Amino acid sequence: MRTRTDRDAAVSLDERSPLRGRRELFDLPEGVVYLDGNSLGALPHSVAERLRRTVTDEWGAGLISSWNDARWVDLSARVGAKIAPLIGARHTDVHVGDSTSVTLFKTLVAASRLRPGRRVVVLEPTTFPTDGYVAAGVARLLGLELRWCDPADPAASLDEDVAVLALTHVDFRTGAMYDMTALTGAAHDVGALAHWDLCHSAGAVPVALEDTDADAAVGCTYKYLNGGPGSPAFSWVHPRHQKVWDQPIPGWFGHASPFAMEREFSPAAGIARMASGTPPVLALSALDAALDVFDGVPVDVLREASLSLTDYFLDLVDARLGPMFEVITPRTRELRGSQVSLRHESAYGVVQALIERGVVGDFRTPDVARFGFAPLYVSHADVYDAVEHLVAVMSDEEYTRPAYAVRNAVT
Amino acid sequence: MRTRTDRDAAVSLDERSPLRGRRELFDLPEGVVYLDGNSLGALPHSVAERLRRTVTDEWGAGLISSWNDARWVDLSARVGAKIAPLIGARHTDVHVGDSTSVTLFKTLVAASRLRPGRRVVVLEPTTFPTDGYVAAGVARLLGLELRWCDPADPAASLDEDVAVLALTHVDFRTGAMYDMTALTGAAHDVGALAHWDLCHSAGAVPVALEDTDADAAVGCTYKYLNGGPGSPAFSWVHPRHQKVWDQPIPGWFGHASPFAMEREFSPAAGIARMASGTPPVLALSALDAALDVFDGVPVDVLREASLSLTDYFLDLVDARLGPMFEVITPRTRELRGSQVSLRHESAYGVVQALIERGVVGDFRTPDVARFGFAPLYVSHADVYDAVEHLVAVMSDEEYTRPAYAVRNAVT
Repeated sequence: MRTRTDRDAAVSLDERSPLRGRRELFDLPEGVVYLDGNSLGALPHSVAERLRRTVTDEWGAGLISSWNDARWVDLSARVGAKIAPLIGARHTDVHVGDSTSVTLFKTLVAASRLRPGRRVVVLEPTTFPTDGYVAAGVARLLGLELRWCDPADPAASLDEDVAVLALTHVDFRTGAMYDMTALTGAAHDVGALAHWDLCHSAGAVPVALEDTDADAAVGCTYKYLNGGPGSPAFSWVHPRHQKVWDQPIPGWFGHASPFAMEREFSPAAGIARMASGTPPVLALSALDAALDVFDGVPVDVLREASLSLTDYFLDLVDARLGPMFEVITPRTRELRGSQVSLRHESAYGVVQALIERGVVGDFRTPDVARFGFAPLYVSHADVYDAVEHLVAVMSDEEYTRPAYAVRNAVT
Repeated sequence: MRTRTDRDAAVSLDERSPLRGRRELFDLPEGVVYLDGNSLGALPHSVAERLRRTVTDEWGAGLISSWNDARWVDLSARVGAKIAPLIGARHTDVHVGDSTSVTLFKTLVAASRLRPGRRVVVLEPTTFPTDGYVAAGVARLLGLELRWCDPADPAASLDEDVAVLALTHVDFRTGAMYDMTALTGAAHDVGALAHWDLCHSAGAVPVALEDTDADAAVGCTYKYLNGGPGSPAFSWVHPRHQKVWDQPIPGWFGHASPFAMEREFSPAAGIARMASGTPPVLALSALDAALDVFDGVPVDVLREASLSLTDYFLDLVDARLGPMFEVITPRTRELRGSQVSLRHESAYGVVQALIERGVVGDFRTPDVARFGFAPLYVSHADVYDAVEHLVAVMSDEEYTRPAYAVRNAVT
């Protein structure tokens, strides 16, 4: 039997957290325990006012002049500079603009072009599906082949035919995290490039792109970075590659002199050449405001808070639900992202029953219940309450309700 | 000497317009004559409230459930359905999602793939620069070559080596409009596909994609469609091609079953396969609201209003400024888009001096002053006032001010 004391202990952990108070920067609905920030981050409070200003003052009143006066023209770069410290990049080296899929397409083509004559792209079969689809599209265009590695040992698939090792840092389904330094080194040992998908990393776990000597990376901004539904992705390219970085969709905003309207394409210096079309100003403005919630938060503090939450969740699940679920997220801290995934044959119903109770996680086919722990706004008390509800769902078999037979989900 | 009577005549034309009152649907700043809607459309009044709702209610309160509950999941298709009647398409055949450059990349690759063995893409050298850059990127990936046609006679460049004739319907610099029916027919006569860029057409001139038998089209939504800075582009594919349409960036939102998380890519039925990544919900919501200003406006009414404005502007410029400018926009109505462009060696200074006076047009290198006439919110009185100011700028040589020596512009 749990006691009041247990929840008090959780509250006490929250009171001692260096991130206490950050939750106030978000507009979270009352009575909801939101453990789906790894799918869609919560709304930072400042976003609504920033969008109002962008729409009404900048677009409505400023009209075309806002490209200069409101600095829309370098908004991508300014947003990139805010993401940079979260991923171990210099502030000049991050671009933000297209969707994650499109960004990944561009970086995979460009990376492959740096290794002409090599014909293989290696990726793990457990990657998020779009990564595989995009990589297949790239392989087809460039005459390459995909090689699916053993997810437990990607390095075993590396040889001198490999142009690019393209891995997802934190697995979307299990939350398992690769050793970026070791695998980047393994890729370099065979002369390949290391390309990282940071969708489930950025804003939740430490990433040190330049220190690990990675070659290129992309990531999503609507999960732990809280940019809003479908917000634009970021890309990073190691400074050593930027001068020769040759992405496949040359467009006027990636031109060295966009307004010269030249017939021939000359890429912009640096990461700006990742741009193709006109930047998505409304989405970038929302993201720009959203990123301010990270101001003054060192990544190692985020990480420690995240691990404290996932440790606590694992402890409570072990103690109270024992063998009912298979925990498919690594228990070793170094191998764990910022989520915990539980396998159960009725995972869909479990997730739906929890949502009904105000605990929002998500389901991943075929049998995984995912719980994300965004350290800026999820508290230990949330974790405690979530497990209380999960215990109730399981003991009453709420997951068997017929309404929960239909499956759908959005990552 | 002009008299009060002349302006009264302009006001009288506005009072008789079937579009009278539409201007009230926009938030235009007081005292501004906005003739740059061909670069960035004005702000429709409904956008701010819609974005507030999308951010605060859908994202903030609804969180992940809004993918279903607020129908984010089919927002691209719903926005496409609103654009469809403006471009002569069925409501099921328009997709909205990526930037114009990225969308163009996808459609040009897919169109070229429908003509395997043919090695040439024809485009006009006067096209907007990004079209040429993107086409060059496509040609390089597919082993094709670009053939630059005579802009006055694109059909002369067609032969049986041509896979795709890719033209811009209305020229961004001159406002000249191609005969879509004739040129589509000419492309088909040699077995090529006709691909149209509608950036400067959609929302301002009649486009009848399916009736003209075109094969594919893309267009911008931040000009005459008023979607806001950097709003996502649309694409259209003739129904006869949709089942075999093979765009190069397969992503999970273009999958037949996105949430099945399958390893292999199976394209969605119909135009939905143009999607790659997660749709940009904030930008699409703004655009969705913005498009309501076209509700109940037949395209031929828009067109007649547009022609009345450009006719009037041309008449006044001829009468009052005579040989001072070279009019590079066709005087023949059938060949004219919804803008008028004037050539002058000090065009940059002229545009800047007009902006100082509250008349916003734009400059296109090297010597073009562009004036766009968005028929929903530009009035004959605006045209009258703009020419008054232009006369003052020219007679006082305001364009020679040193501050106007620096050039920049955004399309």
